[in-house]
Order: sequence, then C-alpha cells, then structure tokens
Amino acid sequence: MSNEKKVRAYTNIALIKYWGKRNEELFLPMNSSLSLTLDSFYTETSVSFDSSVSEDIFYLNDTFQDTKATEKVSRFLDLFREEAGIKLPAIVKSTNFVPTAAGLASSASGMAALAGAANLASGLNLDKTTLSTYARRGSGSATRSIFGGFVEWQMGTNNADSCALKVDDASWDIGMVTVVVNDKQKAVSSRVGMKNTVATSPFYPSWLESTAVDLRNIKSAILKKDFEQVGEITESNGMKMHATMLGANPPLSYWEPDSVRAMQAVRDLRQSGIPCYFTMDAGPNVKVLCRLSDGQKIKDYLSNIFNPTQLIISGPGKDIEEITD
Amino acid sequence: MSNEKKVRAYTNIALIKYWGKRNEELFLPMNSSLSLTLDSFYTETSVSFDSSVSEDIFYLNDTFQDTKATEKVSRFLDLFREEAGIKLPAIVKSTNFVPTAAGLASSASGMAALAGAANLASGLNLDKTTLSTYARRGSGSATRSIFGGFVEWQMGTNNADSCALKVDDASWDIGMVTVVVNDKQKAVSSRVGMKNTVATSPFYPSWLESTAVDLRNIKSAILKKDFEQVGEITESNGMKMHATMLGANPPLSYWEPDSVRAMQAVRDLRQSGIPCYFTMDAGPNVKVLCRLSDGQKIKDYLSNIFNPTQLIISGPGKDIEEITD
Repeated sequence: MSNEKKVRAYTNIALIKYWGKRNEELFLPMNSSLSLTLDSFYTETSVSFDSSVSEDIFYLNDTFQDTKATEKVSRFLDLFREEAGIKLPAIVKSTNFVPTAAGLASSASGMAALAGAANLASGLNLDKTTLSTYARRGSGSATRSIFGGFVEWQMGTNNADSCALKVDDASWDIGMVTVVVNDKQKAVSSRVGMKNTVATSPFYPSWLESTAVDLRNIKSAILKKDFEQVGEITESNGMKMHATMLGANPPLSYWEPDSVRAMQAVRDLRQSGIPCYFTMDAGPNVKVLCRLSDGQKIKDYLSNIFNPTQLIISGPGKDIEEITD
Repeated sequence: MSNEKKVRAYTNIALIKYWGKRNEELFLPMNSSLSLTLDSFYTETSVSFDSSVSEDIFYLNDTFQDTKATEKVSRFLDLFREEAGIKLPAIVKSTNFVPTAAGLASSASGMAALAGAANLASGLNLDKTTLSTYARRGSGSATRSIFGGFVEWQMGTNNADSCALKVDDASWDIGMVTVVVNDKQKAVSSRVGMKNTVATSPFYPSWLESTAVDLRNIKSAILKKDFEQVGEITESNGMKMHATMLGANPPLSYWEPDSVRAMQAVRDLRQSGIPCYFTMDAGPNVKVLCRLSDGQKIKDYLSNIFNPTQLIISGPGKDIEEITD
C-alpha cells in the first residue's frame, strides 16, 4: 500500500520489576514498575483496515502467520475497532529488529508498536498516556514501551489510569549491555510463572511492600542523576523478584549456568572500578545497566566469556514514533 | 598417650535449614531445623587434660595449629572445664575424614566430635541431649551431629533446651549424593551471611513462618516414610533459604555456574523417574537427597557432567560414638 504508515516502538527492560497481575483480563498489575527503554531492540508495525480482505491478516517478519498467532492480534485490534466504530478486517505487517543472534522476541515492543499503528489507522489519535493503557492489554510490559527513557508504569486503580508516565529521558550517559545467554523458548512462561508465584510464594506480600519502597527511591535517584544508587536498587529489586520465584511451590528458577557466570563477571567489573549492575527477567539472559560510555569496555570484558554476538550494547530508546520509509 | 579415647561424629546436612541466630553468643537459632546425618564425612577427636603442657595444644589432621585456630577450641573446652572444675590445659587431636578431593571442612562434625571427646575427658558424662547443647555453642549445626539419622534441632527457649532430638534413624533406604562444585574458601562466611540476611532481607519474617510449617510437614512425612514428600519439602525449604539471601541488601548468592548445572541435572533425573531432590547450604555445593539404592545410578548420571571425585555417596550416619583403634 502506498499510504502505509509504520510505527516503531522500542523494547524496555524493567529496573523495578512487574511480577504479578491483580486482574488477568485487563492486565492490571500488582505493583507499579519502572523501566529503561532501549534503542537496539525495536518493532516496526503497520496496520490498515481494509475491506478487500475477509479476515485479519498478520505478517510477522514478512511471514504469513497462522490463525493462532493472528488471533491474539485480532483480539487486541478489537479494542481499537470498538472504540472507533470500525467493522473492517485489518492487514498487519510487523518486523522485529533485533541484533544478529539475539533472538529476543519482545512482546513489549511488539504490542506497543501494534497499539501505535492501530491508533494511527483507526484515526483515534489517542494521546500517548491513553495509548499506553491500550498497549497494556496486549502485554503488561508493552505499557512502558510507549515512552522512551526511564518510564514508570503506574499500577493505577482501574483500566483508565493503569498507564505509563515518562520519568526522565535518560540522556545522561545511561546504557545497557544485554548478555544473550540463551534464546530458547522458556519452560515456564512469565504469565504462568508470575501466577504461580503470586499464588504460592510466602515472600510475595513482602515483595510488594519492598518494591514500593524501591520505586520511590529509584525515582528520586534518577532525578538526582545518581547512577550508582539507580544501579544498586536495580540489582537488588531484580534479585528480590527472583527470590519470590525460588519461594514458589514448586520453586521456579530461570537461571542457567551462564546467567551466574554473567552476574559474577558484572561483580568483577564493578570491583575493578566500572560501575555496572545486573538485572534478570523471566528468562536466563542478563542485562547490565551501565554508563553508555562504558558499554564497549564492558562488552570487551564479557567477550572473554561470551561470544561477541551474544553481547548487545543499547542506549536509551525513544518514544514510540511514526516512521516514513 | 596409651589411654587416649577418640570420639567420632558425623556431619549432617540440613533439610530444613538453620539460617539466623537470635542470640549470637549462645548460638540460639531463629528457628528449629532438621537434618540428615551422613556416614561419609566425619571427624575423630581426642581430648586429654594434661598438666605436662602449659597451654592448650591443638593438632588438626596431624598438623600443629597456631594460636588463632587453637583459641576457638580453647574457648569451647572452657565450657567443659568450668562445669567439671578442671583447671588443666588440654591436648586435642582431631582428624577430618572426607573423601578425596571433597575438601569439605565441616564445623558440624568437628565441633560435635570435640564436644564428645571433652565430655569423656572431663568425666562429665553428659547425656547426648545435654551434650548437643554444648556442641551448639561451638557451631550451630554441630548440635544436630550428636545424633544419627534424621535429627531435629529444637530452637528452644534458652541455653538448656535448644537441643537436638532424634526423629528417625533413616534406615529406610535414604541417602545423599554430594556434588562438590568448589572447595574454595567462600567469600562471605555463613555467620556473616545469615546476620546480614536477618538484618536486611524483607523475606526473613515470612521465611521463619514458612519454615515452621515445613518442619511440621517434613516430620510427619518422615514418620510416614513418604520419601517424595520429604524430598519436595527439602528442595522447597532450601530454595526459600537462598531466596532470603537474594533479598538481602546487598543481595547474597552462593551459587556458581556448576551449582545450577547440578540442580538442572537433578530435575532431569527426576523427570526420568528417579526420585531425588537437591538442597544447598551457604556455599556452591549441591546435595542430592535420594534413595540410597539409587545413589550409584545418580552418581553415574552426574559423572557425565562432573568428575567422579566430585561426587560422594553417603548413607545415613550414626550417633556420635567412642572409637577404639
């Protein structure tokens, strides 16, 4: 199509973690979270509502997707169709841009880009904050990918106010090195993992209390541009999330031997005087929060242990944006 | 000396963990714990009170020990000297028996054997339960090494009743395979690790609550000889202890890449139909609770990953005992 409008959204990594829903259908979280949007991983998506097709068509990375993969997209687009009174099927084309060998499929950038493209195509022209409440219903972490820099996802009280808010644009020498330990499908999805944790971990209530304090402190550290403080809170909060999983019944751990190796290397780097801090999500990869200007030094050091293709330096990503080819 | 009496004490591995003191001086624990005594790791010790020496002399593995190492032994022997009204210095000879390459120094068997030998030499002839309160003041886990089989260390209310109690002699096809990941000195001692955890981990109060439930359940499972239940509680309780450490500030982890590899292998073995369950203490080694009759099969499987010298099969150990050469 000639007038195809693409939207690009960047992925984000939580420094204060989202782990647990209070409402499964609306993706309302148990706690507020905070992330850094990254420029090296993003998704570009176009949506056009089109009477020439009889049902929704979804291409991912130029590959036609089957009914099952398309269904999730369709249900998400229904939110926009309902609001805009559109009855037409859609053609959706989406491309994930991830560095070679990373293989990190990101539902955060994917759902945020889809929300942005549907916003354009539907003519709704929702502001970004409102758009983030739509993105949320595709994937919790997508809420935060509407904005660049440091972003808070406020847990809110209902569907309308559980939204993203930019805290800071992170343009003060902030970056992240991603260590791709493993790109295999994980044995326990984060959806199931968080559900079991909420249901069975004796540590879950204290996690929520302690995360509220971490969030307050990290926002204050970000505003003061106190990088070490931001890093220490990040590392501690991430480990506490993994602690809640170890407390689940049965215990849950996403760590692999190389995850431990990467975390040990980060501690070594820090002892050698380079301020950097690790965090992990519901998978074995390790993300290293650092000064962007230290990114190459950190990558060089980690290259003693990992293949350089497993190591990706990112700067802070931007807000969701319209792209013209 | 011709009339030298040696006492042998076996080490033990906690299935319900001890992690935190409520009284540092008396080694009173924050919670009751439960262990399995192992026959493959033990210490033999003799004590003689002797007027021919001017101060306490301590040989460990036939090597004369310096003042610093001897001081801890002296302070411990003072408990017996005071009680028995003995004013003489002591000659202490202690030998750790650990399989080749294990290098596992065990304060549990060491302090229990020392307590037993001092009991003999002092003529106090304390019963084993009382003796366990003395052992406790050398090292918390030594409390449990006075008895064989499954042993509970009841937290008690004071110095006299914080003692060991035999739960079951474990003579129903119970064993353990120890995976010696690393025998280096650990960076953070368990004394410091537990202290920091109690002081800073938001999960510590829930750990105590949840451990009290685990203890009740594992005792009931032991009495029913329900091995799977014993194993599941063991694995869960151990992971919860490590979760409290991840929650400490700064986060604490004793895991190494090979620890994760060993735990993954245990999960694989279990999936293949061999009931076995892992636990870890304040160090990187992994202990696999199993049917003793499955020990060799488990060792064979783990030999694909580890050197056979890193793998030690143990059956249940006995009560502390007097040895005659």
